[in-house]
Amino acid sequence: MTSIKKDRMAERYEIRLSGFGGQGLIFAGIVLAEAIGIYEGKYVTQTQSYGPEARGGKSKAEIVVSDAPILYPKALGVDLLLAMSQNACDTYFSDLKPSGKLIVDSTFVKESPITDTIFIPFTHIARTQIGKTIVANIVALGSICRISNIVSRDSLQKALVGLAPKGTKEVNLKALNAGIKAAAKF
Amino acid sequence: MTSIKKDRMAERYEIRLSGFGGQGLIFAGIVLAEAIGIYEGKYVTQTQSYGPEARGGKSKAEIVVSDAPILYPKALGVDLLLAMSQNACDTYFSDLKPSGKLIVDSTFVKESPITDTIFIPFTHIARTQIGKTIVANIVALGSICRISNIVSRDSLQKALVGLAPKGTKEVNLKALNAGIKAAAKF
Repeated sequence: MTSIKKDRMAERYEIRLSGFGGQGLIFAGIVLAEAIGIYEGKYVTQTQSYGPEARGGKSKAEIVVSDAPILYPKALGVDLLLAMSQNACDTYFSDLKPSGKLIVDSTFVKESPITDTIFIPFTHIARTQIGKTIVANIVALGSICRISNIVSRDSLQKALVGLAPKGTKEVNLKALNAGIKAAAKF
Repeated sequence: MTSIKKDRMAERYEIRLSGFGGQGLIFAGIVLAEAIGIYEGKYVTQTQSYGPEARGGKSKAEIVVSDAPILYPKALGVDLLLAMSQNACDTYFSDLKPSGKLIVDSTFVKESPITDTIFIPFTHIARTQIGKTIVANIVALGSICRISNIVSRDSLQKALVGLAPKGTKEVNLKALNAGIKAAAKF
């Protein structure tokens, strides 16, 4: 690891996972937070918000990563935005830093206001390769792993195995790998 | 509902659920946050932190409730602290407001530095009344519901049914009711 990468990490790295309720974004956020916080030993906070906003069907989970204790756990400027619905993409793209990455589920997001958006059909992959649309969130985590370098495949696998409900371990690991593979060209 | 109660809520109400890893405190935090945020329509943030601290086996989940959007989601002064381990009790009691309530699992917490601590044997109740120690977290939620008035039984039940893994709905509802009953005398 170069010192440049280390210095960048010492600031903050903010991730927002967004979409609609039922896509498992809170679960994905907890898996990602445990992977980085417990298995990679960084300081991580993971926050979700409910209230009037949540009733519109929107769902979001935020993860802040740092080498030092995190005093303000809410996203200030997003480094990586996952948008799994058109609504989430339209609402949250403006919180991205100029250098931030936008990854969308092209099964649902047809247009992006940002030119270098990464389009990957997470839900389509989950349905056709795994046979379960419900693991689209984990496919997305796999792609985030491949694209961002914020977390290793090994840490994600450990966190996922620890948190997956009984009987879903294999299907989740398969989804993670499908996501890593799907992002290989980016 | 009196206007005094309403005004108090408009400020902030902060809850911390703490104990050791594996007690399901994050799950309990999400159930409580959804119950208040989605079914009672308040603004709620739910945060968990990982990092060097988490490796000591400690686990905590924080919930901030307000009638207005929450700008700072981390606990500033805790109104209600649940401590399900002696370690968590010893570490976090000092973050309680003078008016704050401390509820401990007397299965694990034998001493408290605060005189009016509420002792309830959540894990013992889960084991003897439900047959599963793993639902001690839900027993605790039931007691929190009864003691704090921050959330109704109805909202908690709805959130719990929506979030409980398949096949665990009944056992969870039973645990919730056991917790409500156990707290009746406080």
